[in-house]
Order: sequence, then structure tokens, then C-alpha cells
Amino acid sequence: MIDERMEKDEVQFDEERLVSLLENGATDEFHNEYLNLHPYDQAQFYEKVGPDIRSIIYQYLSPKEMSTVFEALELDDENYEPFIDEMDSSYAAQMISEMYTDDAVDVLNELDKDKISHFLKIMDKESAEDIRDLLYYEEHTAGSIMTTEYVAIPENSTVRSAMTIMRNAAPDAETIYYIFVVDDQNHLVGVISLRDLIIASEDTLIHDFMNERVVSVLVTDDQEDVAHIMKDYNFLAVPVINSKQEMLGIITVDDIIDVIDEEASEDYSKLAGVADMDTFDSNPLIAAKKRLPWLVVLLILGMITANLVDLFTGTLEKVALLAAFIPLIGGTSGNSGTQALAVAVRGIATGDVTGVNKFKLLIREALTGIVMGLVCGAVAFIIVYMWKSEMLLGLLVAVAIACSICVATIAGSFIPLLMHRLKIDPAVASGPFITTLNDITSILIYLGIATLFIEKLM
Amino acid sequence: MIDERMEKDEVQFDEERLVSLLENGATDEFHNEYLNLHPYDQAQFYEKVGPDIRSIIYQYLSPKEMSTVFEALELDDENYEPFIDEMDSSYAAQMISEMYTDDAVDVLNELDKDKISHFLKIMDKESAEDIRDLLYYEEHTAGSIMTTEYVAIPENSTVRSAMTIMRNAAPDAETIYYIFVVDDQNHLVGVISLRDLIIASEDTLIHDFMNERVVSVLVTDDQEDVAHIMKDYNFLAVPVINSKQEMLGIITVDDIIDVIDEEASEDYSKLAGVADMDTFDSNPLIAAKKRLPWLVVLLILGMITANLVDLFTGTLEKVALLAAFIPLIGGTSGNSGTQALAVAVRGIATGDVTGVNKFKLLIREALTGIVMGLVCGAVAFIIVYMWKSEMLLGLLVAVAIACSICVATIAGSFIPLLMHRLKIDPAVASGPFITTLNDITSILIYLGIATLFIEKLM
Repeated sequence: MIDERMEKDEVQFDEERLVSLLENGATDEFHNEYLNLHPYDQAQFYEKVGPDIRSIIYQYLSPKEMSTVFEALELDDENYEPFIDEMDSSYAAQMISEMYTDDAVDVLNELDKDKISHFLKIMDKESAEDIRDLLYYEEHTAGSIMTTEYVAIPENSTVRSAMTIMRNAAPDAETIYYIFVVDDQNHLVGVISLRDLIIASEDTLIHDFMNERVVSVLVTDDQEDVAHIMKDYNFLAVPVINSKQEMLGIITVDDIIDVIDEEASEDYSKLAGVADMDTFDSNPLIAAKKRLPWLVVLLILGMITANLVDLFTGTLEKVALLAAFIPLIGGTSGNSGTQALAVAVRGIATGDVTGVNKFKLLIREALTGIVMGLVCGAVAFIIVYMWKSEMLLGLLVAVAIACSICVATIAGSFIPLLMHRLKIDPAVASGPFITTLNDITSILIYLGIATLFIEKLM
Repeated sequence: MIDERMEKDEVQFDEERLVSLLENGATDEFHNEYLNLHPYDQAQFYEKVGPDIRSIIYQYLSPKEMSTVFEALELDDENYEPFIDEMDSSYAAQMISEMYTDDAVDVLNELDKDKISHFLKIMDKESAEDIRDLLYYEEHTAGSIMTTEYVAIPENSTVRSAMTIMRNAAPDAETIYYIFVVDDQNHLVGVISLRDLIIASEDTLIHDFMNERVVSVLVTDDQEDVAHIMKDYNFLAVPVINSKQEMLGIITVDDIIDVIDEEASEDYSKLAGVADMDTFDSNPLIAAKKRLPWLVVLLILGMITANLVDLFTGTLEKVALLAAFIPLIGGTSGNSGTQALAVAVRGIATGDVTGVNKFKLLIREALTGIVMGLVCGAVAFIIVYMWKSEMLLGLLVAVAIACSICVATIAGSFIPLLMHRLKIDPAVASGPFITTLNDITSILIYLGIATLFIEKLM
């Protein structure tokens, strides 16, 4: 929920003191100190102390007070289950029912189906119904991140009646800063901001000054598209509707910040070929498990390079020095391929690259590759000549580097664009995948040209 | 500014129609249609039409109307200057003075000092002063992204007087949803939310229900730290103070979203070794210029690999097949190094890795490297044996891969941690840099071991 209190207690809470209050049964003192902390700090404390101390906390806090803490819990792998298991089911169920619906759904989605049904059965019917509505939206859609605690007023309201509705809804609504206007069939027909509401005089009809053309998102829209809209239009919240224009919920800016962060982390992981970004405190086996799949696949793919070099054994035996430049050519072209990949993937992710722009990007990348190939080729020639005084060898390395860089740059942008076209997440074309491909093509180019001119090189 | 209107006209504006209205001198009609668009869409239109059409727009829109458009302009390289140059200086100066101060500062910072002084001289004194205060804050600090249009009330106010102040300030304030409380020396002493204000009864003293422990940031804090705070505490805005606790400005959540995006883009670029993320429409020479520096540096560094392989010519001449595995071993260890790098850099950026955690991360990475080394070594052995039926060669490749992966993984996390310690931005240790280092170490390990056992391999 958007924090509208801006309240924060001690910059660092005194963990030892709080723990001793708990252990000594000083209920009132603990209540005073702990509940005065910002929920974020309450959650930090809750997470840090062990299960033993937490079992005392469950006795001291009501389910509603506990729900505030739980909502602020930010677990990297969303592993709520161990905490839920520490509680009595009825305590847990009631706590979940007191949470904002989107947060309740996040927690329940981590439990197995039996537990979910059980909790939904024992909690109050109204909360259970609100939660059920949201539970089955597909991950990463607007429906899966929206919440149902918004303020809606009928379109024939006056400012006075709207203020009353708003004041009543205030304690439970995620935000009261946008007030949505609906008709008698719950269709979204307009919106007013709290700012406009307070400034207007009490008898004015809402209908006269509401904004009729409301930006909204479909419940099935991808969360990344919702993030773009909120970013572009600087909204605090955006309403979510279905295809019939009926209002279903809202998504607030604080949740979108988490989405933006999550998506950035995912893209970053994929560029590095990590399946799912580790947290620093996972044990090595889990970390290895996340990275091995890609690593082994690329290892097997990399065997192709060994095969290729083996094919050219004849050439290498004649001029052994040729082998020295294999890593250099592969590495440099791999680097430029990774650069091109990053630019393309980022362009697709931010929505800058679409439609006809794709073609322009490819052309631009091809030309960039040519420019870089020429420059690097020249540098390579100079260094090789200075090192070995072999003009022909220098020329070969230069040409091979120049061609490899061109190919790598084009491939580095073409492949993600192709995948985007085939509706595959372009970030899957990871950096390591591109560099492995480049190893293969650069060896072919380099040793291929060398073989053609092998007589002259000997 | 936070958008509190949530108003949006046609999903796509009719560009042709608007242009023809301009060209036919239909001032009123253009005003009606254009000014009904969301500022974001107004800016999109403004950017798309050429300088000729824009020269007509400057005649149709007042500087204040133009300022709304300019604030919503999102230029990738912040190249406001061409647009400013299209206007009369007095028109431009007045427009800038009408903009929110943080946006005005963003624009002025892109112009040369003479122009800045000139504009500041000809605009009204009050705006010029507000702008001057913000102009010289160092880039990427809280001061450089804050704005001065906030609502502050004296601590001895009543709810009634606060509401009056707030209503008066509303048209110009970036946000009225947090109202800051200051003493008579402008020290920040508390905050109340608009929600709390409306619910309270009119004679209550602000002092009685304001939140005294306000989260604030120092004007010199890094923008990334501000982003973390706003993300963690779900704030809509955060006040900025100086070391004397005097209130200087606020930073709103919409600006922080841009910061988060910017920082993510930077990290992503650096992982790929791109100096500054290209936009897809830069010309090839500019794009090449951004990528070449790193590429050439790594090319020169990569010559070390050529030197090394050359040193081992004796070994390679005896068993030519050895050369075949150089790219494979270098590539696989490079991939695992990049993975480790990504995890470490991301951990440092999100603030997860600090202090003693660094050591834990290194230990964890070392162990992860050992696990992955063993698995990949085993896979490599099997494939090499299946391919060439050479058990000793297979063993050599397996051991070399295992050791290289361990070294790469440790280096991939150690180097960014070291740089972070030395106060260098760890993201500078780019992916390409790590892979080039890994090429060097893997060749040493592989050909070194091979040379030791060369007799047995022949």
C-alpha cells in the first residue's frame, strides 16, 4: 500500500531491547515500542529473530497487527510458507484475511492448494471471496498484481456525498488520492483526484468536473505494459477493468516500482546466463543448480568449437602460431556481440524498438559492426606486426577480426529481434549463448581464411 | 510531477488533424484539441512534427502552456538544446520559469553556461532564485533531482489553517498529499498526510497528530540511496534536508521511478561493456564511438592470450589436438565468471551485500565454483572420451575446466567486491573484462598442466 503516514521510529530499532521485552513478558511495553515502528522496520525485526522469538510475537500481536508486518515482508524468493507454518491455522487465516487483497494473494500463491482451500474456508466469507477473485489470474498480468481496496463513487454523487464515502472508505482503501466514478453497472466512467475534490464546492456534481477519459488497463495486460503506462503518465495508481469496462481493481505505484525492479533484475540475470538471480545467502548447491543448466548446455555447444579446430589441424600444424590468435579473435568478437545484444534487448524491453524500427536497428548495427571491425582490424594488424613482423599474418588476423566483429554485431541484434518476433522472451538469448555462437563463427572465419592462404603464410 | 488528473484524451492523437489545424490558422480549435491531450501525448506530438510546425506551435501556445509540454518531454539523451534554440530567448526563459523547478534545472543543465546566465537574467527574479539554488547540485545526488514546490505549514497551525494553506498551495505544488511541518526557522519537524488532515476535525492542532519522526534524506545523498528508501517504505515523496535539518525540497515517486530505470539501464550497459546505452536511432558512428573504447582496450589485453599460447608452442606442436580445446575451456570459464559477476554486482547495487556479507558471498561463490567445476569437468571428460577415446586427454580437459571455473567464479565475485571497497563503481568490471581475464587464466591453467604431463599425452 502507498505509505501515507511517513512515520518512522528509531533509524535502527533496538533489536536486543525488543527481544528482552518479549522474553520478559512486558506485553504493553513491547506493543508500544514495536507498533510505533514503521511496518518495514517491524518486518525487518520479525525476519531477523528466530522461530522461538516469533512464537512469542504471535501471542502478543493480534492477527490484524500481524497482517501489517506480513504485508511489509520482502522475501527475495517469496518463501512465506515457513512463517505461515509457525502459526496456528486460524491465526494465519485471520491474518491473511486482514491483509490487503493483493498481498494476501501473493502469500497464498506460495502455499500448496490444500492449505489455500483450508485457509479460504476458515476465514470470513467476504475476504475469502475477494481473495478468490484475484487468486487465479495468470502470473505477471495486471490481474495478478491489482488489489480491490479502492474508492468508487456513483456518477450522480455530489462533492459532499463523495467526501462522505471517501472518509468512510479511507481506513481500508489502498489509496484515496484517486477516486473512481462508476455507473450503476459498475462500469468505470470517470475519475477525480482528491486534490480536485477538496478544492471544489460541496454542491457541485461529480459528473460535471470528473475526467471522463480515464487511462485504464485490462486485467489481462502484461505487468510490464502497466509499468510503462504508469511511468509515462506519472500516475499514482491505475484502474483495472475487464473487457466490458467493469471496474475490477487498482494497481498502485509502489507495486509497480517492485515490478520495474523485478523486470530489471530478470533482464540482468538473463544477460549473464543466470536462470534466476541468486540471493547472496543461498547455499552453494542451490546457487550451482541455478547456473549449471545453461553452463552445461553451452559446454556441449562449445564442443563444436573443439570439433572445428580439430578439422583445421592440417592448417595449424603448418603454422603453429595461428593457434595463438584463436582466443583473441573469439574474445573480441564475443565482446562486440554482447554489446549488440544488450542494446537490442534493452531496446525491446523499454518499448523503443518496434515494427519498422527493428529493420532500422539491424541496418544500424550492421554499419556499426563494419566501423568497429575496421578500427579493431587496424589495431590488431599494428600489434601483430609489431610483435611478429609478419605482414601477412597481421593481415589475416586483422581481416578475421574485422569479419568476426561484423558477424557478431549483426547476430547479437538479429537473434533477440527474431526471438521477439517468435514471441520468445528475447532476454533468453543470453550473453553466454551469443559468445559461444561467436566462438564458432569466428573460428570458421579465421581458420577458413588461413587455410585458403596457408601456402603464403608458411 | 505526480499526475493527479488521470486524464487522457484519444488513445492515439490524430497527428494529421492537429497539423492541418495549425497550418490553417485554426487557433481555437487547435487549443481545444491539443490542450485536452495528456501532457505526455502533447509532448509526443511536439517531438514528432518538424521544426517548421513547431514554430507555429510557439505562436499558438503561451509559455505556461508550453512549459507543460516541455516537462513531459522524455528525450533519451536529454538533448533539449535544439528545441530551446527554436524559440525566442524571452519565450524560452519564461517557459522555463513556469516549469517545475526540478524539470527546469534538468533543461538548463544541458545548455552552455552563457545561455544559462542569460535565461536566468531575463526571467522573473523569484523563479531564477529557486532555479539557481538547485542548479549546482552534483549530478546523481538528492539535491539534483529534488524540487522546491512542496507544501509546508508552521507547527502551530490548526487543521483549519493548514487546509487553507494547502488549498492555496495546491495549484503550484508538485504534490499536496504529504504536508510538511516546519518550525519558524524552517527546520523540518513533522509531516502529516492529506488523508489524516481531511479526517481530523478543524480545530485540532497539527502539532498533536503530526508524525514527528519523519524519514528524510540529505541533499548530498546519492540518488540510488533515495530510491532504496522510497522503495522500502512505499513513500509517495520524501523531504530533502541539509545538515542543519532545514527543509530544502522534496523528491516525488515519479522522479524516483525514472532514477530506478536509469540505474538499471546503466548496470545493464556496463555488464555488456557498453559505455552508455545507445538509443536505437543514433547513427553508426556514434554507436561505434560508445562501444569502441572498451573493445579496443580488451583487444590489447587479449593480446596477452596470444603471447601465452605462443609460449606454449612447444607443447602444442607435440600434441596439436590440445589447441582444439582452448576456446571451449576459455568460453565455459568465461560464462561462469560472468554469472558470478552478475550476482555480485546486483547484490551490491540492491544493497543486499554489505560488510561481513561480502566475505560470506566470496565463500559461497568459491564453493559454488567447486560444485560447478566438478560437474562440468565430469561432463567434459565424458564428451572428450566419447569423441577421441583418449582418457588422459579427457582427464586433462576435465581438470583444466574444473580449475578454470573455480578461478573464474571466485574472480567474478571478488573483483566487483574489491572495486566496491576501493569506491570504484563495481559495474565497471564489465562482463567482457571478466571474460578476457578468464581467457588468460584458463590458458595458463590448461596449457600449463598439459606441459607438465606432455610426455604422457603424446
